[in-house]
Amino acid sequence: MAKSKSEAPETKHEQNLDHIRHSLAHLLAAAVLKEFPDAKLGVGPTVENGFYYDFLLPRPITPDDLKGLEKAMRTMVDKKLPFTGREVTAAEAKKLFAQQPFKLDLINEFSKEGQKLTVYETGDVFMDLCRGGHVENTSEIAADGFTLDKIAGAYWRGDEKNPQLQRIYGLAFESKEALKKYLELREEAKKRDHRKLGKELELFTIIDEVGPGLPLFYPKGAILRRVLENYITEMQEKRGYVPIWIPHITKGDLYKISGHLDKYDAMYPPMDLKGEAQYYLKPMNCPHFMMLYKTEPHSYRDLPLRWTCTTTNYRYEKSGELSGLTRVRALTQDDCHVFVRPDQIEHEINLMLDMIGDVYRDFGFNDFRVRISVRDPKHKENYIGDEKIWVEAESVLKNLIEKRKWSHEIGEGEAAFYGPKLDFIFKDVLGRDWQLSTIQLDMNLPQRFELEYIDDKGEKVRPIVIHRAILGSTERFMGILIEHFAGAFPTWLAPVQATILPISDKFVEYGKKVHEQLLAAGIRAELADANESLGKRIRTAEMTKIPYVLVVGEKEEAAETVAVRSRKGDEGAVDAKKFVAHLAEEIKKRS
Amino acid sequence: MAKSKSEAPETKHEQNLDHIRHSLAHLLAAAVLKEFPDAKLGVGPTVENGFYYDFLLPRPITPDDLKGLEKAMRTMVDKKLPFTGREVTAAEAKKLFAQQPFKLDLINEFSKEGQKLTVYETGDVFMDLCRGGHVENTSEIAADGFTLDKIAGAYWRGDEKNPQLQRIYGLAFESKEALKKYLELREEAKKRDHRKLGKELELFTIIDEVGPGLPLFYPKGAILRRVLENYITEMQEKRGYVPIWIPHITKGDLYKISGHLDKYDAMYPPMDLKGEAQYYLKPMNCPHFMMLYKTEPHSYRDLPLRWTCTTTNYRYEKSGELSGLTRVRALTQDDCHVFVRPDQIEHEINLMLDMIGDVYRDFGFNDFRVRISVRDPKHKENYIGDEKIWVEAESVLKNLIEKRKWSHEIGEGEAAFYGPKLDFIFKDVLGRDWQLSTIQLDMNLPQRFELEYIDDKGEKVRPIVIHRAILGSTERFMGILIEHFAGAFPTWLAPVQATILPISDKFVEYGKKVHEQLLAAGIRAELADANESLGKRIRTAEMTKIPYVLVVGEKEEAAETVAVRSRKGDEGAVDAKKFVAHLAEEIKKRS
Repeated sequence: MAKSKSEAPETKHEQNLDHIRHSLAHLLAAAVLKEFPDAKLGVGPTVENGFYYDFLLPRPITPDDLKGLEKAMRTMVDKKLPFTGREVTAAEAKKLFAQQPFKLDLINEFSKEGQKLTVYETGDVFMDLCRGGHVENTSEIAADGFTLDKIAGAYWRGDEKNPQLQRIYGLAFESKEALKKYLELREEAKKRDHRKLGKELELFTIIDEVGPGLPLFYPKGAILRRVLENYITEMQEKRGYVPIWIPHITKGDLYKISGHLDKYDAMYPPMDLKGEAQYYLKPMNCPHFMMLYKTEPHSYRDLPLRWTCTTTNYRYEKSGELSGLTRVRALTQDDCHVFVRPDQIEHEINLMLDMIGDVYRDFGFNDFRVRISVRDPKHKENYIGDEKIWVEAESVLKNLIEKRKWSHEIGEGEAAFYGPKLDFIFKDVLGRDWQLSTIQLDMNLPQRFELEYIDDKGEKVRPIVIHRAILGSTERFMGILIEHFAGAFPTWLAPVQATILPISDKFVEYGKKVHEQLLAAGIRAELADANESLGKRIRTAEMTKIPYVLVVGEKEEAAETVAVRSRKGDEGAVDAKKFVAHLAEEIKKRS
Repeated sequence: MAKSKSEAPETKHEQNLDHIRHSLAHLLAAAVLKEFPDAKLGVGPTVENGFYYDFLLPRPITPDDLKGLEKAMRTMVDKKLPFTGREVTAAEAKKLFAQQPFKLDLINEFSKEGQKLTVYETGDVFMDLCRGGHVENTSEIAADGFTLDKIAGAYWRGDEKNPQLQRIYGLAFESKEALKKYLELREEAKKRDHRKLGKELELFTIIDEVGPGLPLFYPKGAILRRVLENYITEMQEKRGYVPIWIPHITKGDLYKISGHLDKYDAMYPPMDLKGEAQYYLKPMNCPHFMMLYKTEPHSYRDLPLRWTCTTTNYRYEKSGELSGLTRVRALTQDDCHVFVRPDQIEHEINLMLDMIGDVYRDFGFNDFRVRISVRDPKHKENYIGDEKIWVEAESVLKNLIEKRKWSHEIGEGEAAFYGPKLDFIFKDVLGRDWQLSTIQLDMNLPQRFELEYIDDKGEKVRPIVIHRAILGSTERFMGILIEHFAGAFPTWLAPVQATILPISDKFVEYGKKVHEQLLAAGIRAELADANESLGKRIRTAEMTKIPYVLVVGEKEEAAETVAVRSRKGDEGAVDAKKFVAHLAEEIKKRS
C-alpha cells in the first residue's frame, strides 16, 4: 500500500522491519478473506511499531476473532510463502479486483494520475494492489514477533460520507524478544502517562468549557511550572541574559512585516476590531523582540544584547493532534533572542551550550544528541545571508559540539533558509526521543525588520539574531518530566517536598513546630493532620510521590526527631534540625 | 448648558465651584461675542478643574486673543452682574437665537423631546440657552481665580460631518491661591508623567505595529514588573495562598455560564474557529477559578481554599481612553479567589486586610481610605444571597475597618447585587486619588457555576467566594509608582540599585570586583565602564535615578572602599564590604 514520505524507513534495519510489517498486512488481509470471503478490502499500510488493514465486514470483529486471524497468519508464515510482484494494466487490474469496490476506487484514481499499477502475490493465497516493499519470503518473518493488537473504526479515505470500515492493528518486530520489550515499554509508558499522573498528582486538568489543548493547573502544577520557570530565569540571569515583557496580542501589522500572516498556518483567526485593526494572538515572540530592539539606537559596544522572555504563544493545532501537556494550543516558551555582531557568534553559542549542559545535568538528562542542521552544499543559492557568516557559523557549531564530545549528527540541507541551527534530542528513560532545546541563527528577521547598529567605524550594520529556547515549552517539558520520572520528581522539583504526619492529634503541635522549621528553610512542606488513620495518610503521601514522609509521635517529640520515610525506604529517626538542614542542602544541590 | 450626570457635583463646596465655572463659561461666550460679533456659539459645560465653550469663528484664536478675552471677562466679573433665568416657549427661543444656528439645533431637539426651555441672562451683556446652575451674581467669582488655558478643535456634537468649532478651555477655582496650587501641581504632574519617565528610564514603550494600550517592557521595566509580582507572590504564600495557572483564552461556553458574554461589553471580539467554537481572550479570571474548583469534590475541612494567579486580562478600551500604563488593554492582575464557608468570612477578610496594611506600609502609601460598599437598606430585594450572610458580612467589613482605625466611608447602595465590598483609595504625593485594592464578597458566581462542598453533616452546601486584588494591575500600579516617586524608586524597587563608575580604564578591574560582590549579595548592580567621561556617567546615573552611584579610583582600590553618592548627596568613602552588607540590609527591609 502507499506510504507517506514521513514514514519512509531510513536505515537498513528499519527498512527490513518495514518490509516485514508491510508483508504482515497482506497476510492479515489473506487471513480475513479466508474467514470472511465477502470482505471488502481497504488499505493496509505500515505504521509506527506495526501495520494495519481496513475491512468492510459482515459483522463486528471481536478479540476472539483476532486470535483466530493471528493463528491463520502464523500458519501462512510457516509455509515460507514468496512475495512476487508484477505490473498490470488498468483493465487487467479492474478484472482482478472486480469484487473489491475500494480497490477499484484506487485503480481509477491511480490510472487517472498516470501511475503504474502493480500487484503483489503471496504464494497462491493472496493478491493485493500494491506498490511493493515486502520480504522476499515469509521465512524472513518471525512467527512469534507479531501480534494483532486492537480494532478501531475508520471511514474509507477518512471521509465520514464514505462507509465506515473496521481497522485491525498489528504490532510487528524482528523477533519475539523485540516484541516483548516493546509491550513492556508500552505498559510502562501507560503507567507513566502524564495525562493519568497529571490527574492523580493534582497537577493539571483540561476542561471542556475552556477548551482542548488549554490545560489549567492546580496549585501543585502551578508550583512545578514556577519552579521550572524560576530555575531557567536564574540560570539565565547569572549569565547576563535580561528579561523583557511583551503582550500576547498584537495588530496584524506586526505579522505582515515578519511574514507570519502569509506563511504561518497555525495562527489563530483574528479578532476584528472594526474600524481599528485586526488583532492576533502571538504564535511566536520573535517579531516583538525585533520591534523592541528597533525602538532605540544601538552601538557595537552595546552588543551582544541578551533578551529573554518566558511567555505564552498560541498555535491552533488540530484537536485530534492535542495530547495532555505535550501538545497544547497555548505553549509557554523560555524564549531568548541575542542580538550579536558576527565576531560574537562563537562566544554567544558557547555560552548557550554551557547553559544547556548545566540544565541537562541538573535534570539528570544524560542521554541526548545534537542535530546540527547546515546548508545543502549543492544548493547554496537557496539560502540568504552573507556567505562568510554561513561558512563560519556552520564550522563554529560543529567545532563547539565536537569539542564537548556530545553525540551528534549533521543534517545536510536541513538548515533554515536564513541560518544554521542546533536541535537537542533527549532520550527518556523509556528510550523515547523528545526534541527539547534549539539554537538557531537568523539572518532574515534582522533584514525584514531593518535592524541596525553603528559599528566601530560609525557605519550602520545589520546585527545577527540568535534564537534560543532551552526547555522548549514549560507545558511540554512538564509532560516529559512527569513521564520520565513517573511522577516521582527529584526533590528540588517536587511540588511538595516533605509531609509531616502526626501519629495522633496529640502530636499535631509538635508537627506544626517541625512544619515551621521546614517552611523557614524554604522547603515546600505540608502538615497532614490526624483526621485519617496514619496508614491511610502514608499511602496518600506515597501515591502522590512526596519525597519525604515525616512521622512524628511521642518518641519523636521527646527526642526532637522525625521518623523519615524516603524513596529509599525507612530511614529511621533523624534529628529534626539536622534533617531540615540536609534536605535544604539536597534541594540546593538539585541532587 | 446641559451637564452629564457623571459630572454632577456632590458637596456644597463642589456645587459652588461648579456654579462659578458654569457662570464663567457664559462670561467667556459674552467676551467672545464682544470681540467677534458674528461668532456662532456651541455649548459651554463645566469640566474637571474648569469649563470650556465651543465657537465657530471667522479666524483661528491665538494665545494673545486668550489674554484679551480673559481681561474682558475680569471686567465683567468686577461689574457684579446678576444671573437671572426664565422659561421661554420654543417660538420665543427661536426668535431670541435666530442668529445662532447651533442653538436653534438644540432648541429643535429639546422641544422635540418635550423639554422645558430656559434662558439665562448675565446682567444685560449676555443671554444663553441654558438649564441653569449659576452664581447669583458675578461678585461670587474671584477675578484672579480663573484663567483661559488652551484652545482645541471639536466638531459640533462630536460628529466629524458637522462643522469644526474652536474650543476654549478655562481653569477656575474659588481663589487665586487655589488656582496657583492647581497650576503648580499640574506642572509637577507633567514632570512626573509616567509616559515621559517610562521612556527616559527605559522602562516601557508603545509601538504602533503592536497596538495602542499594549505596552512592551524593556529590561528595566520587566525587572520592576517582576519585583512587584514576586513581592506579592511572597506575601501571599507566607499567608497560605497558593498559585494556580490558567490559560488566557477560552471557549465562549465558559462566558455563557458566567454571564460575561451577555453583560460585559469590554470583551474582545471572538476568534472564530469554524466548525469548533468561538474562542475569547479572558476579560476576567473568576470563571476559570470557579471551573477549576468544580473539577474536584470538596469537604468543609478543605476550606478555605486560597487560590491566586497573577495573570493578564484583556479589555477592549476605546483608544481615546488609553493612557500609558494606567489605562491599558492588557492588564495583569494579582488576582485571588478564596472559597470559604460562612463562618470563615471574618477570618479571611482580616487576613486580607493584614496583607493590604503590610503592602501599603512597604510602599510607603500612608494616605489611603476605604470605601465600604453595602446594600441599599430600602431595596433589599435588589440583592441575591442569604439575608443572614449579608447582615453578618456587612457588619464584619465595618467592624474590621473601624478596629484598624483606617479612614473610611460607607457607600450605601453601592454593593454589587451579589455581595458587599471594600475598595481602597490611595492618595499619591500630588493628592490624586487612585483606586487600588479590592475585596469583594460573591454569592452569585458560586450559584451560576453550581459550586459545592460537603459540610460537617454530609450535606451539599454552596461556598462563598471572596475576590481580592491588592496591586490591582501590575501595569497600572507601575504607572502610579513611577508618578508617586517621580521615577526615583525606593532602593528595593529600583531596577538598578547601584552602579559602579571606575574613574578610568585602570580601575575597571577593581570595579568588576566590587560588581561581583554586589551581584553575589543579590543586588541589581551595573558596571559603567570608562568609555565616557566620569562626569557624563554620573549625570546619566542621576538622570536614570539609580539610588547608589559608586565611584572607584586609586584611593578606593588601595583602601578597598567605594566613594558613595546617594540621593542624600555625597556620602564619601565607605568600606566596600560594609557598603554591600548595608545595602543588602536596606533592600531586605524595603526601607
